[in-house]
Amino acid sequence: MHIDILTLFPEMFDGVLNHSIMKRAQDKGAFSCQTINFREYTTNKHNKVDDYPYGGGAGLVLTPQPIFDAIEAIRPEGHEKTRVILMCPQGEPYTQAKAEELSKEDQLIFICGHYEGYDERIRQELVTDEISIGDYVLTGGELGAMVVMDSVVRLLPDVLGNEQSASEDSFSSGLLEHPHYTRPAEFRGQHVPDVLLSGNHAKIAEWRHYESLKRTFMRRPDLLEQRELTDQEQKWVHKWKKS
Amino acid sequence: MHIDILTLFPEMFDGVLNHSIMKRAQDKGAFSCQTINFREYTTNKHNKVDDYPYGGGAGLVLTPQPIFDAIEAIRPEGHEKTRVILMCPQGEPYTQAKAEELSKEDQLIFICGHYEGYDERIRQELVTDEISIGDYVLTGGELGAMVVMDSVVRLLPDVLGNEQSASEDSFSSGLLEHPHYTRPAEFRGQHVPDVLLSGNHAKIAEWRHYESLKRTFMRRPDLLEQRELTDQEQKWVHKWKKS
Repeated sequence: MHIDILTLFPEMFDGVLNHSIMKRAQDKGAFSCQTINFREYTTNKHNKVDDYPYGGGAGLVLTPQPIFDAIEAIRPEGHEKTRVILMCPQGEPYTQAKAEELSKEDQLIFICGHYEGYDERIRQELVTDEISIGDYVLTGGELGAMVVMDSVVRLLPDVLGNEQSASEDSFSSGLLEHPHYTRPAEFRGQHVPDVLLSGNHAKIAEWRHYESLKRTFMRRPDLLEQRELTDQEQKWVHKWKKS
Repeated sequence: MHIDILTLFPEMFDGVLNHSIMKRAQDKGAFSCQTINFREYTTNKHNKVDDYPYGGGAGLVLTPQPIFDAIEAIRPEGHEKTRVILMCPQGEPYTQAKAEELSKEDQLIFICGHYEGYDERIRQELVTDEISIGDYVLTGGELGAMVVMDSVVRLLPDVLGNEQSASEDSFSSGLLEHPHYTRPAEFRGQHVPDVLLSGNHAKIAEWRHYESLKRTFMRRPDLLEQRELTDQEQKWVHKWKKS
């Protein structure tokens, strides 16, 4: 996979691209990445990338010209169907299903604005996907692009070792993870639950299932609505609802 | 405000902390920030921060000792109520209301794990807030901490200029933003809507209101459910529902 990132702040990506998984995945050849400062594509004298909005109002709006020209420069001819992803609060809420979908592409192009809005013609003519990582206000699209990249890159073949990939399974069960404990068995007076030290694998599996469902019930009942409960799970939920 | 970040990958934060708003906010004295590699607080011979889970299973679990010791080293005595935020998929979904709440604190401490789970005693004894930035899998808590920091720092006094802070208002209306246009009036055959060039401020305001509501209706009907619609808005929604 190749990833291009259009941004006015390419240096913001250095720390994340050059460490941990993102670094290792590039070293292994799982993906390559290029940051492009679209200010370099401006054709006006002062390299301005934004201007006042038609119709008035506060704030600045990114002009179409530098972003159109930058994308045409980096997208090979005949690849007009390459995914061009706009990070913005108006986008579709990002999900793990979307990460899996994007991980199957050969090339991704991200457009990151910063404070400014985007001229609507960028959306209409260039963009294939608009993504929001959540309902909170960020100063730019850069952090969103890093989040999407991280979630996509870790799904590429050979990027994660076995140890890490296993942790994904529990998420895909549709429940929040059960509590974890490791050594020491007692820490500052707090003990690991006996069942986890029992060696009884059936009991341990049941405890984890129970705790996982309980945590989801307490914290994210919305996740349970999308899930068919087994008879045992329904009994547990019934008990919690009563108390 | 002072922010401490416990992480095994402090260099991941360099790009984001040293550019744009985060850099300017630190230069202005709006907040200070320190990254702490909690591996430095381990008391075992090999500086191990994680271990196998009790009860078996794949994956590693962060041990309590280095995280407890690191937090006690950075939290002034008598400040046991300082917010200690664990970034994790099991946390409460992050919202703008939470960003506003956190922006009123004097100190925030973030704990970022990486692949591993957290020993439950960290949650029980140290942590005041568990936050998830969305329902997707990331390789660690670092990007989540950056997202929360960015959204909080931009709310601190004097961090944003007027131009940028205005853009927040539209978000807080509970609707997605209307389309924006800037120069040129024609770009590659695509024209700016006439109304925005009309100079008729009442018409422009109505067009923006209509487009904003329509975009929200089409893309995020969930946001409309939480909002009381005016008579005019109900008429518009009724029309879209019929077509």
